[in-house]
Amino acid sequence: MEPIVIVGGDAAGLSAASKFKREHPERDVVVFEKGEYVSYAACGMPYYIKGAVEEFDDLLQVPPEKLIEDRDIDLRRYHEVVAIDTDAHEVTVDGPDGEFSQPYDQLLIATGARAIEPPFEGMELDGVHTLHSLDSAKAVHDAVRDESPSAVAIVGGGYVGIEMAEAFDAHDVEVHLFEMLPHVLAPFGEMVAEHVEEHLREVGVELHLETAVDGFSGTDGRLDGILAGDERYDVDLALVGVGVAPNAELASEAGIDVGETGAIATDEYGRTSADDVFAAGDCAESRHVVTGAPDYVPLALTANRAGRAIGQTMAGDPTPVGDIAGTAAVKAFDLEAARTGTIDEDEAREAGFDPVSITIKSRSRAHYYPGAEPIHITMVGDRDSNRVLGAAMVGREGVAKRIDTVAAAVHTETTVGELEYFDLSYAPPFSPTWDPVLVAAKVLNGKLD
Amino acid sequence: MEPIVIVGGDAAGLSAASKFKREHPERDVVVFEKGEYVSYAACGMPYYIKGAVEEFDDLLQVPPEKLIEDRDIDLRRYHEVVAIDTDAHEVTVDGPDGEFSQPYDQLLIATGARAIEPPFEGMELDGVHTLHSLDSAKAVHDAVRDESPSAVAIVGGGYVGIEMAEAFDAHDVEVHLFEMLPHVLAPFGEMVAEHVEEHLREVGVELHLETAVDGFSGTDGRLDGILAGDERYDVDLALVGVGVAPNAELASEAGIDVGETGAIATDEYGRTSADDVFAAGDCAESRHVVTGAPDYVPLALTANRAGRAIGQTMAGDPTPVGDIAGTAAVKAFDLEAARTGTIDEDEAREAGFDPVSITIKSRSRAHYYPGAEPIHITMVGDRDSNRVLGAAMVGREGVAKRIDTVAAAVHTETTVGELEYFDLSYAPPFSPTWDPVLVAAKVLNGKLD
Repeated sequence: MEPIVIVGGDAAGLSAASKFKREHPERDVVVFEKGEYVSYAACGMPYYIKGAVEEFDDLLQVPPEKLIEDRDIDLRRYHEVVAIDTDAHEVTVDGPDGEFSQPYDQLLIATGARAIEPPFEGMELDGVHTLHSLDSAKAVHDAVRDESPSAVAIVGGGYVGIEMAEAFDAHDVEVHLFEMLPHVLAPFGEMVAEHVEEHLREVGVELHLETAVDGFSGTDGRLDGILAGDERYDVDLALVGVGVAPNAELASEAGIDVGETGAIATDEYGRTSADDVFAAGDCAESRHVVTGAPDYVPLALTANRAGRAIGQTMAGDPTPVGDIAGTAAVKAFDLEAARTGTIDEDEAREAGFDPVSITIKSRSRAHYYPGAEPIHITMVGDRDSNRVLGAAMVGREGVAKRIDTVAAAVHTETTVGELEYFDLSYAPPFSPTWDPVLVAAKVLNGKLD
Repeated sequence: MEPIVIVGGDAAGLSAASKFKREHPERDVVVFEKGEYVSYAACGMPYYIKGAVEEFDDLLQVPPEKLIEDRDIDLRRYHEVVAIDTDAHEVTVDGPDGEFSQPYDQLLIATGARAIEPPFEGMELDGVHTLHSLDSAKAVHDAVRDESPSAVAIVGGGYVGIEMAEAFDAHDVEVHLFEMLPHVLAPFGEMVAEHVEEHLREVGVELHLETAVDGFSGTDGRLDGILAGDERYDVDLALVGVGVAPNAELASEAGIDVGETGAIATDEYGRTSADDVFAAGDCAESRHVVTGAPDYVPLALTANRAGRAIGQTMAGDPTPVGDIAGTAAVKAFDLEAARTGTIDEDEAREAGFDPVSITIKSRSRAHYYPGAEPIHITMVGDRDSNRVLGAAMVGREGVAKRIDTVAAAVHTETTVGELEYFDLSYAPPFSPTWDPVLVAAKVLNGKLD
């Protein structure tokens, strides 16, 4: 029988390969990875640049040798899959020794995503970086240490922008953060954004909101400034983090359906429109548990669990990849921000809901317990069904994992009234008697009545 | 119309009174409290004794004046209800000016619980304390500071015992903790208990497990030792925390049904067997969401939310008090322990389940992120239905509120397979990519297959 072939040696691809091999050790699994690194912790890159993660190798989760020897995966690095023939069930591979064909029994496309490179003037200047590979992380890491930059421009106020502001600030670099929209962290909603923005300013980040970047200026090929909002700022380092785009071209050129989001369309088992071809991870769509519609939220857990489920499905045990709730958390200096579900009222209305939102302020500990910090929650429910649609929260502690209670409610189509009566944990060092999530549900339920 | 009458001015009673008054400001609500204090933070007492909560007044959540003036509640302190006549719809009250009758339209019994006083020899000695009132907390607080005790005996390894070990240790008192059972924190299960015990020993607590206390010895009416397990230990302070008993006598003497647990039996609206008589808080039973059976788990949130729901029901809007999951968290020095649902396999079997348990070890942060601490989880599922029955966990961080995700799963009758695919938050400072809860569900689901 032809082997299982997997395109891409990161979270989704290797989760699938490992799971399949556990079920069928006798079958061959070939993983083609076009670069040097496999199974790396992309989410750790800002912390490596910051210096919180000391060793580059700490970002490598499973060494290639282990994949090859312990898991018996036929891992081929420096091999790029350049074409898929879905009729012939084979891929064309460009490797160190030239091109060749590789037939497959079943194929998983796990090509990931790439940093969007906007068409700014001066993108090619020395000192302008993006962050979506270990090599680029190493370059920024070394630049911060070797070039002693005095000011950095971060373009984009998403996760990467916020985390990189913290990373640069740790090296006493003056940080300018440029965001085209009125607020940072768009998926977290305005309430969270405003708290994060206030905090960023507090810690000394120069925040430029609603400020479009026109380009970079340089001398002798070396960055010396950024042009934005009709101003020029002296900077000697720049990090462009305006989002990622799915690597869906390989699939679309093979005639495989791509969704409206631009990512590869998949069904609940991660199957694409082509027979025996799956897609998972940052190149693929997922189904959103609230809207029921295809969505593109390229995050690490989604990739890992979809890969694993597809490995199981390919092994003969059909396993859904799971819906996503868009659950996410981010550390912004001393703040934690988190979100889950559908919190944008327009998105909720488009999905057929009649959304109602409230915002409450509670605390991370009993009011009398030292160190209690404010927690702010926005929660959204549906007027018709009373269902919990989503929430966003922000505070200095107890936020990142508290969102999971709401994520669980979102997954189980819990009503706001039911959530209000969940028996959640309480002890003075960890929560008020009524957990902030319960307070939010109580207030929202009052408004939905 | 006769007033709403409430017996007991703490969490359940005042939540009901406040809620009812918000709905019907024109109606009278009389609250009889036999003591001085109302609305006090019993859970904060160990932290007051420790010194983490500095002011005694910080334990008083809502001052009596506020209840009387702002909320217009007819609060009568130093008034003890000594009898209920359910036919006549009136109570007999013993107040500062003697006994009188008070008719009621509807009645809420919220008499709370009391510390169990075991029949130990020497319980009456100076230096032997229990902890279930603000006055007792103040006595222990002052004893620690004024008497400079050198060694304390804590009898009972439940929440109070563990929290008081931390409190005494903060004052450099040698701490002996005596537990009759093989493990501390029985409701948390053996796995959690063993980690807590190891930690208690690490920080210097002298732990005496499976050690029955015979009594206390004294000189001139003053404690000087504890007799336990055929040994005698010099101690000059003792704290007996072997649990609480519901104050159900007032109800039972009035012919109101008391359940097998010894607490007042109630239906899903908190109604007792007598017309127009409700019960809530530490004197009443609740329904357990997993077993569906009446249970007695006297905790703060249960009292608050049942009181509030009953206030709403008495106001004409029938509102269930909510099932309990027995969710609880406790801080034990540098450890956090938490539990929810049904984790005891015998209890699960009695309730008709076929329980299967697993224990996993994961981490509180990404493996490469500094400060990641182990988290240990035991999760229990039902072989027949695949339903999540409960979980217990322990670790140095990220435990107390992580249990709420499982509590949500327990409340919604989520299967282990569904929980495994919840989209939970991930960022390196807060969680591994697969949250420990997901890892537990994955492993448990593998065993249930």
